[in-house]
Amino acid sequence: MRNVLLSTVLFMGIISVHAQNKVSINNQNMEKKTSAVRLIYPQWQGGIVAHWMPDIPAEDASRGYYLGAQLLNMLAPESSQEVIEVPVSLDINDRETEKGISSRRVILKQTKAALEKLREKAPDRIVTLGGDCSVSVVPFTYLAEKYPGEMAVVWIDAHPDVNLPYDEYEGYHAMALTACLGMGDEEIMGLLPGKFDASKALIVGLRSWDTGMKERQEKLGIKGLSPEKVAGDSSAILEWLKETGASKVVIHFDLDVLDPAEIIAGVGVEPDGMRIDEVVRVINDIASKYDLVGLTVAEPMPRIAIKIKNMLHQLPLLK
Amino acid sequence: MRNVLLSTVLFMGIISVHAQNKVSINNQNMEKKTSAVRLIYPQWQGGIVAHWMPDIPAEDASRGYYLGAQLLNMLAPESSQEVIEVPVSLDINDRETEKGISSRRVILKQTKAALEKLREKAPDRIVTLGGDCSVSVVPFTYLAEKYPGEMAVVWIDAHPDVNLPYDEYEGYHAMALTACLGMGDEEIMGLLPGKFDASKALIVGLRSWDTGMKERQEKLGIKGLSPEKVAGDSSAILEWLKETGASKVVIHFDLDVLDPAEIIAGVGVEPDGMRIDEVVRVINDIASKYDLVGLTVAEPMPRIAIKIKNMLHQLPLLK
Repeated sequence: MRNVLLSTVLFMGIISVHAQNKVSINNQNMEKKTSAVRLIYPQWQGGIVAHWMPDIPAEDASRGYYLGAQLLNMLAPESSQEVIEVPVSLDINDRETEKGISSRRVILKQTKAALEKLREKAPDRIVTLGGDCSVSVVPFTYLAEKYPGEMAVVWIDAHPDVNLPYDEYEGYHAMALTACLGMGDEEIMGLLPGKFDASKALIVGLRSWDTGMKERQEKLGIKGLSPEKVAGDSSAILEWLKETGASKVVIHFDLDVLDPAEIIAGVGVEPDGMRIDEVVRVINDIASKYDLVGLTVAEPMPRIAIKIKNMLHQLPLLK
Repeated sequence: MRNVLLSTVLFMGIISVHAQNKVSINNQNMEKKTSAVRLIYPQWQGGIVAHWMPDIPAEDASRGYYLGAQLLNMLAPESSQEVIEVPVSLDINDRETEKGISSRRVILKQTKAALEKLREKAPDRIVTLGGDCSVSVVPFTYLAEKYPGEMAVVWIDAHPDVNLPYDEYEGYHAMALTACLGMGDEEIMGLLPGKFDASKALIVGLRSWDTGMKERQEKLGIKGLSPEKVAGDSSAILEWLKETGASKVVIHFDLDVLDPAEIIAGVGVEPDGMRIDEVVRVINDIASKYDLVGLTVAEPMPRIAIKIKNMLHQLPLLK
């Protein structure tokens, strides 16, 4: 009996080694095919947002996206994805406007750092947890270079983010979609690896424009869909995608697209937004028909967490 | 020149060793004097709360305190305190009511585990991050044993938490203060190391009673102060503390004491509550005059974090 057992164990062992080798090779192939990284990108300098949250100390509101990115990472599913974090300054005084962009120097530096991180890992797919809306710019233009001519971008956002430097509002996060189209500050554009054509960009959930931005959107020829147009089903988006001829898609999801009656998770509080389950359905409908290579969740502003954090820091015994 | 440098380096080295020894000895004394632990106690079984949050899946709302405790720990100041975590079951089906207490078996087990952790570390001070209100029971009665006759308990809460087993509401978190007074389930009371006298318990911010609980509070002779009574200053609390003759204090802070107009951080949403800065001031005023040996922050219910977590778990590319 012992010998039989021993032989079986040895035999199973040999099978096991073979199986492991096979699995290992398969995993290598799989990894090569689908290597995705999770990019934690807590950039907050793209926003000028404190005035929208008078109940939070201005400096905490300004840097709120930083905590927001850490929270998103904590709340995201556990995964075997490699997690890489872009180093982001927390200096509140280093926000000088230069060439029409607030905090331009810091943003330049962090853009380079993000790109360096991506080039080092060379992923095929990127999930980005931001950070203000501008955190999509580096991963999306990296992917645009990787898959030239194959990609469309779906920008799920209450706002169009089509500002340009020297517009009245100086926050780079409002210039994020235009940057993905290759338009904006010369030096930043010079860094970005690729770009999208405006005919391959769609804004979903759009319902709020700063002065002149509706006209800018029209002039650029970027199609927008209101929350109502996608409330029942995703067909308007899927039809548009079909027309573009794209095979791969990147999706930017600004949390302010969500209806404030259901959740206030971002900065902007614009009524009549999309429901959480509608956004989830839209993203999954796209992913079921196209190769989703990039997904960003952006603009988390954890108001309650900031208040609790500040409160805990004022209590005795905790330090 | 090299010799001078060498001598200087050696001399500095000798000073440095002496200084380090001194610091080390001082630290040991300091640690001995003020050894505090941070107890992460994500117990959620004390609450029956899902019906108050119809916009969150019932199981997530029930276990919401679990995530709440992790978030509090993330948001708390960095500290050199030793962090210990009570192992807590996440089994949603193991909630049988026994002897008038929901989830009694699990609570018994976790009570034992918490006590074991504390006895192992034998701290002089405990900061507890919960978890439902019942997470104060083990640390407070541990401290009551450690400092017999010296202590008072200040219970900052919208509700009195003076339920007993077999009352209509079966959640153990509503029995938390009575348990600290040594009243409740025989087997649980048998485990608890010490207890407080009702004359040394004060409820602050109190404004909501379940049927019969106002009468229970009166019968037990526990003094309560409304939010208005402590809005301007902490004198009513400090006068009461003086009368007790206590030298040490433990403070329980249920987040539902806060005014929902300012923040909804707990489960209960009771209007006309305390402001965050009022609670912070009350706790610091007590700590400035008395030896604060225990502090609990309880009942965090991170509604928005739960929604974002569930949303992220439904998105592609993140797993």
